[in-house]
Amino acid sequence: MSNKLLVVGSVAFDSLKTRAGKRDEILGGAATYIALTASHFAKVNLVGVVGKGDFPEEHVNLLTQKGVDVEGLEFAEGKTFRWAGEYADDFSTRQTLDTQLGVFEHFDPKIPDSYQGAQIVLLGNINPSVQLQVLDRLNEKPYVITDTMNLWMDIALDELKKVIARTNLLVINDEEAVQLSGELQIRVAAKKILAMGPEALIIKRGEHGAYLFTKDTMFFAPAIPLEEVIDPTGAGDSFVGGLAGYLAGEGKTTVSAIKKGMIFGTATASATCEGFGTENTARLTKDEVLNRYYMLLNLVSTD
Amino acid sequence: MSNKLLVVGSVAFDSLKTRAGKRDEILGGAATYIALTASHFAKVNLVGVVGKGDFPEEHVNLLTQKGVDVEGLEFAEGKTFRWAGEYADDFSTRQTLDTQLGVFEHFDPKIPDSYQGAQIVLLGNINPSVQLQVLDRLNEKPYVITDTMNLWMDIALDELKKVIARTNLLVINDEEAVQLSGELQIRVAAKKILAMGPEALIIKRGEHGAYLFTKDTMFFAPAIPLEEVIDPTGAGDSFVGGLAGYLAGEGKTTVSAIKKGMIFGTATASATCEGFGTENTARLTKDEVLNRYYMLLNLVSTD
Repeated sequence: MSNKLLVVGSVAFDSLKTRAGKRDEILGGAATYIALTASHFAKVNLVGVVGKGDFPEEHVNLLTQKGVDVEGLEFAEGKTFRWAGEYADDFSTRQTLDTQLGVFEHFDPKIPDSYQGAQIVLLGNINPSVQLQVLDRLNEKPYVITDTMNLWMDIALDELKKVIARTNLLVINDEEAVQLSGELQIRVAAKKILAMGPEALIIKRGEHGAYLFTKDTMFFAPAIPLEEVIDPTGAGDSFVGGLAGYLAGEGKTTVSAIKKGMIFGTATASATCEGFGTENTARLTKDEVLNRYYMLLNLVSTD
Repeated sequence: MSNKLLVVGSVAFDSLKTRAGKRDEILGGAATYIALTASHFAKVNLVGVVGKGDFPEEHVNLLTQKGVDVEGLEFAEGKTFRWAGEYADDFSTRQTLDTQLGVFEHFDPKIPDSYQGAQIVLLGNINPSVQLQVLDRLNEKPYVITDTMNLWMDIALDELKKVIARTNLLVINDEEAVQLSGELQIRVAAKKILAMGPEALIIKRGEHGAYLFTKDTMFFAPAIPLEEVIDPTGAGDSFVGGLAGYLAGEGKTTVSAIKKGMIFGTATASATCEGFGTENTARLTKDEVLNRYYMLLNLVSTD
């Protein structure tokens, strides 16, 4: 696995409450889910920031044991980003109970020299101005995968559009696709969003799977119907982590590779939902990822 | 196409209003959608009832031109069943504006002698007591496909359970699966419903596709993302019509045949949504059905 994936995003403490129970201040953050899932396929270079005084060594050890390079994980004065949320019993909505940005508020992403030359960069769901900073600080132009959310469409649309114009593969959910394009039908929305610059667009629909659109391709990756959902936090990050890790590991960004990557991402995301926060994601083995991958291929086979 | 499909259900006039426009008293009813779509694959024997004075010959001609046998279509004193409804702009909900049962209220299904011996019977979404009457009036035990809805779970659950116990393939949507089983996760719901008797269960999720569950199989058929939805009325009937027609035409009810039938059903249902009522369903050619079938196979191909 010589191909490197550069990941930029949040590393956080999450307090989570779902119909299945609750957890207080457990390891979370988009970059954490991404690093844990991508590490099954590729060497991950992590860029993020945590609090110098409150981020335990065991969390760092978890990442390094998975082969994640944490040279780019900054330990800054202040507190680690904290988020608390509670899900409706049917998981259709969630309510944010508390957000404390801490050191994440003034995150100034530093790219270690050893991280330069990454073939693929995954910009996790953070402020688009920080995503742009990351791109500006790379010496070579990589293949750029961008994850974002409605918040940035609401408060930083101009910056976000600049990021999208420099993105190869954009990953958003269906509501965000409607918001970004002003179109109700995602197939029409996809055309408009592709015209903003990306050569490929993934539209996630949660438990209903995910679509890939390019200029001349449409692909659908179904989700695994789960017997039990414990906590969907991080499922989107886990999806994009499995996907980006697979692309980096294969050293390919062809449409066919993206399709297979989406199925690997679906596999890792399904495991994420079966535990609180990163708990099950951290436990996941490569064999289990492969089992879920083949189960997903079989799910749509008419044989 | 020597294999016969016996279809029992409503034939109606629908008045429809969606974001795309409106239509007054156009041809509708579950058995109509089913007969039109199934006729691409098999000889359809229709059992239903319409009003002697108000059902135009052109509608009968439309069915017979498609090869549908209408000997079992009864012309009774009174008015044809009428339904009027209006859809929310995002099609997530619909409101019934008017229901006039007319001759359908005392529907006493008569099975012509020439219809006996059908290999497959499709019980459209009607009162379970009528569905039971149909089964009781058949001389031989066919493969039974049953479509039903939440209304009957609310007001005729005991009768419905008797129908389900005599059903080979049950077709319901996800909300109905939750209601019928008391389980929130459809995979768990499916186990409980299969224990009620059917050897196979299809759970429809509208624009999100449909799942097939048997004792040891799980399969998913995605939907086609449409550029424009005109009117989803009858999409579920069109789905089960394409499916049942395919099974009858092939003379097979194996799991593999059901999977392929679901994809044909998805193909016909997608066309139904692209016109008001039965308008586009009636226009649909076999070539177009096949094109959509291969498009759906391609939609999940990782090549």
